[in-house]
Amino acid sequence: MIDFTFQNPAKIIFGRSALSHLYEEAARYSRRVLLVYGGGSVKRIGLYDDVMNILSGGGFTVFELSGIVPNPVLSRVYEGIELCRRENVGLVLAAGGGSVIDTAKGIANGMKYSGDVWDFYAHKRVPETALPLGVLLTHAAAGSEMSYSSVITNENGMLKRGFNSITSVPKFSLLNPEWTFTLPPYQTACGVVDIMAHMMERYFTSVTHVELTDRMIAAGIQTVLNNAPIALKTPDDYDARAEIMWAGALAHNSLLDTGRIGDWCTHRLSHEISAAYGLAHGAALAVLFPAWMKYVVKQKPEKIAQFAADVFGIDPASGSKTDVALEGVRRLETAYRSFGVPVHLKEAGIVNADLQMMIRKALPDADSTLGEYVAIGRQAAAEIFKLAE
Amino acid sequence: MIDFTFQNPAKIIFGRSALSHLYEEAARYSRRVLLVYGGGSVKRIGLYDDVMNILSGGGFTVFELSGIVPNPVLSRVYEGIELCRRENVGLVLAAGGGSVIDTAKGIANGMKYSGDVWDFYAHKRVPETALPLGVLLTHAAAGSEMSYSSVITNENGMLKRGFNSITSVPKFSLLNPEWTFTLPPYQTACGVVDIMAHMMERYFTSVTHVELTDRMIAAGIQTVLNNAPIALKTPDDYDARAEIMWAGALAHNSLLDTGRIGDWCTHRLSHEISAAYGLAHGAALAVLFPAWMKYVVKQKPEKIAQFAADVFGIDPASGSKTDVALEGVRRLETAYRSFGVPVHLKEAGIVNADLQMMIRKALPDADSTLGEYVAIGRQAAAEIFKLAE
Repeated sequence: MIDFTFQNPAKIIFGRSALSHLYEEAARYSRRVLLVYGGGSVKRIGLYDDVMNILSGGGFTVFELSGIVPNPVLSRVYEGIELCRRENVGLVLAAGGGSVIDTAKGIANGMKYSGDVWDFYAHKRVPETALPLGVLLTHAAAGSEMSYSSVITNENGMLKRGFNSITSVPKFSLLNPEWTFTLPPYQTACGVVDIMAHMMERYFTSVTHVELTDRMIAAGIQTVLNNAPIALKTPDDYDARAEIMWAGALAHNSLLDTGRIGDWCTHRLSHEISAAYGLAHGAALAVLFPAWMKYVVKQKPEKIAQFAADVFGIDPASGSKTDVALEGVRRLETAYRSFGVPVHLKEAGIVNADLQMMIRKALPDADSTLGEYVAIGRQAAAEIFKLAE
Repeated sequence: MIDFTFQNPAKIIFGRSALSHLYEEAARYSRRVLLVYGGGSVKRIGLYDDVMNILSGGGFTVFELSGIVPNPVLSRVYEGIELCRRENVGLVLAAGGGSVIDTAKGIANGMKYSGDVWDFYAHKRVPETALPLGVLLTHAAAGSEMSYSSVITNENGMLKRGFNSITSVPKFSLLNPEWTFTLPPYQTACGVVDIMAHMMERYFTSVTHVELTDRMIAAGIQTVLNNAPIALKTPDDYDARAEIMWAGALAHNSLLDTGRIGDWCTHRLSHEISAAYGLAHGAALAVLFPAWMKYVVKQKPEKIAQFAADVFGIDPASGSKTDVALEGVRRLETAYRSFGVPVHLKEAGIVNADLQMMIRKALPDADSTLGEYVAIGRQAAAEIFKLAE
């Protein structure tokens, strides 16, 4: 176990009654609110109307920034900052999933900074303070409702960049599993894969003596694996949605980082597939994680074999470490397929992908590497993409 | 899963380098510090000297309240409040285990309250604010380093009472597993039993659909069960001490309460054994938890059987629910015995205990009950004490 600092002050209000706390929580910060949202689902499920009734009816002045799309862009962050400054907004409220929350995080940090908010994403500056941020979560996936992180794409160069800061941790997040009942199955499945990937990136570490966090991560993955089929078959199963939603927040709130270093190679490579071919983040992870694991097994099977035993209950004595590890990968692929997501690029309709272009973008320096558990250079990345084809 | 609110803003700084953060963290709050500690161990391990060098050498003015003993008492809290007021102290720093931290929590809350601090323990008032509190943890057990809770004994009537408040969550806690290397084996074992009991009280709930937290609790208990024998055999095994220390903080920081209601009957009954016969808190829990489980198996074996399967890997198909549950209890007793703690009152040298007196104290009303998983009245409590004899 390595030394660590852990702190996560987010206030989580979870359950069917979550919205009843909105007025009280928002009123702690400001009566002038910017509501950030996408459009479709928040209105379809009635959440938009409910929020407006609570806030406008409760004497708040609500400004709106809507139409936020997946892979959210910097121009909308600028727009939100401008609006907040012009209207002297004191609270940013994100109603949606990761894209909406990450846009709101950009706005909240940028509003309190005299320079260009992109400085934070370019890692030129670190935010010192931010507007308070509240969240109403409608999609269990990104974990942004409790995390330090946010990711934005700068249209100038299509650079997708992120930064981590305690100023990005929401002051409060309202999580009502009912708000995810009408998510289409593919989005539900992509969210599940993203949550599992957040846990797996942390699980695969070369740091030893991390038993408690290993076990807690395995607990989270098993819970998601058990509940995803229920949520996919019965979208309004509250308990399954609740297990997935709480797992999604804990997957990315820094707790499972304590004492260890995550790998994150798969996330990094998957961004290039999404950027180049528009594949959903979760689907790109479903394609790449098994491929990464198959490559890594050849170098260093230990932790993949432990994963197979911890998560899928495969008897460690049933074969060599490599055999056990590969059986774990097969089980993972089977689970992903049963969720309705692709586990190969061709299953996602991507053939003859420009692997070299993606590799050069992910590894701009010829001798740079990605990952912690195994260092992945350009040659290894090419093999992983090949395994993913 | 039931609706919940979760928030824990404590900043945890964990590892061999933890003390190097003391100056920076303390300086955020005040240059006038009250250092609360016991005496023996903090000086023996050199921590007292290190802290004084950092603070006095760094321009802090340090006042001291020392000699805090197990089952800490209200008079020392009053003394600390008086000292803080007289000297205009701005930060309370607890160096020790649960007794020291709980004393410091009483002082921090009481200093900012114009009435009698006992009002909080008597549940007559709720604290609105408190002095900032920092912790240097030298014993993994009570979990007070990250919890909302504190327990104090009022010598007037020997009333042991507690209250939970966000004002009692430390601003920062420094956790260095090395500080626990010299703990005597019996104290190490009692700490381990206390940590496990904090997890088990939460595990045994009648709330259904709590898979994620069930699994995380089982992960914590298994980790402690695996590492306790190592720490007892090799007291300076850093990794084993680290697993136990981090598990101890997470056991009681409210995370494992999310979506469920804990039982806490065993804790309540165990306090009476400690009060009447001076048995250490952990030892009293080791005696009572198996007894409570044996009683409960007869009423409602389901969750005890699930515990046996989740924690000890007992095949649920190997027998009836009762059989599986009782095998789990036997394994737990075997583990406790191997740690060197008693699992029966007579093993702790307590014979012919005044059970009726303890029951009347724990259940002052003839028809009141304790617990959530199963309601324990006076008759049931008598059976549990009998099973514990």
